[in-house]
Amino acid sequence: MSRQPLSPTARSTLNRAKDRAVIDRSELDAVLDEGLICHLGVIVDGAPVVLPTGYGRDGDTLYLHGSTGARSLRSKDDVCVTVTLVDGVVYARSVFHHSLNYRSAVVHGRLRGIDDPAEKLRALRVVVEHMAPGSWEHARQPTKRELAATAVLALDLTEASVKVRRGGPNDDAEDIAADTAWAGVLAIVCQWGTAESHASLPVPAHVADRGRTAPLQP
Amino acid sequence: MSRQPLSPTARSTLNRAKDRAVIDRSELDAVLDEGLICHLGVIVDGAPVVLPTGYGRDGDTLYLHGSTGARSLRSKDDVCVTVTLVDGVVYARSVFHHSLNYRSAVVHGRLRGIDDPAEKLRALRVVVEHMAPGSWEHARQPTKRELAATAVLALDLTEASVKVRRGGPNDDAEDIAADTAWAGVLAIVCQWGTAESHASLPVPAHVADRGRTAPLQP
Repeated sequence: MSRQPLSPTARSTLNRAKDRAVIDRSELDAVLDEGLICHLGVIVDGAPVVLPTGYGRDGDTLYLHGSTGARSLRSKDDVCVTVTLVDGVVYARSVFHHSLNYRSAVVHGRLRGIDDPAEKLRALRVVVEHMAPGSWEHARQPTKRELAATAVLALDLTEASVKVRRGGPNDDAEDIAADTAWAGVLAIVCQWGTAESHASLPVPAHVADRGRTAPLQP
Repeated sequence: MSRQPLSPTARSTLNRAKDRAVIDRSELDAVLDEGLICHLGVIVDGAPVVLPTGYGRDGDTLYLHGSTGARSLRSKDDVCVTVTLVDGVVYARSVFHHSLNYRSAVVHGRLRGIDDPAEKLRALRVVVEHMAPGSWEHARQPTKRELAATAVLALDLTEASVKVRRGGPNDDAEDIAADTAWAGVLAIVCQWGTAESHASLPVPAHVADRGRTAPLQP
């Protein structure tokens, strides 16, 4: 599985807060792999539409998935896919320096529809295993009719950028000297809850152990 | 504080999964108030750009905030703002019926820049109190220079839609009868961690108690 470096174009080069740009392909992969949904931006009738969308990554390709009826997945033009993980709130001594700790990946490109049944099945597996690891083997496989009702789109990770903010507040020296307000970080910790069963079968290990094997924020 | 009903236009009327559309203004407010960031979609040089952005709600107005240098906040055309809360993964007996439980709010409209200093201060307070309740009173107020470097934009909540998926999987009758795969829901539980201090002052109550007074997912 090859790993392309990040190759910034004009629009994937960050204009603001360049110090938060991360030129590291592994950081891009980490954000994409840790996120659960992406926000897909397309242009519909001349205006932007941003919708939460399921996805999965396989090497240098992002696969998006939805209904064949979804307008947003039929875009022939450029799209933008963004995955954001919010890690915490940064409290500063001044209102101005309040911030969020986060990691975000932004990918630009054109969606490629996947029609070949074998490729579609492979791509769908990537998406399902991203959302629910272990489910592809455990649950019933898609029928031809179900496959036909599912749209799977591919997006190359060639044009992508990652932005990361970590650590404490960047307070002004005068505010630190004044020492009249607290400063620090309040982390957001997301975890898998206990499985709620809707079946007579016992909870399988790939579900019961998900919290142990793949914490949402390690 | 008046409360407009949701007034769907063609683009804010959901095309897919109409059963997940919620025509309830209080549900829209709940999603916007519980979310921490939005994804702002704008068109830059003819292509969509989706960026995570801080915001806050006051009645029928959403306030977005960022640097005055951010291109995405200078859009004079229609924008789309989406806030998504992912509540859990829905495991079905078939791969096809796997899904996510989520709540998402999608708002369409044009950004209105706020230049009046008094209005800007009020709007900024809404954004800061959304991100860090209690900080507006606790931390140092913005200087004129800081205010000038901050862009605050208003977006009316007139054209908005909410989509909600709750509950267990919608499995096919044959798959339920076959009883060969588990089905259920694995919830995602997000909580505030323990405050990490970067100051000599004790952690103030509005930070220390945030987890008790405003759980991320009640």
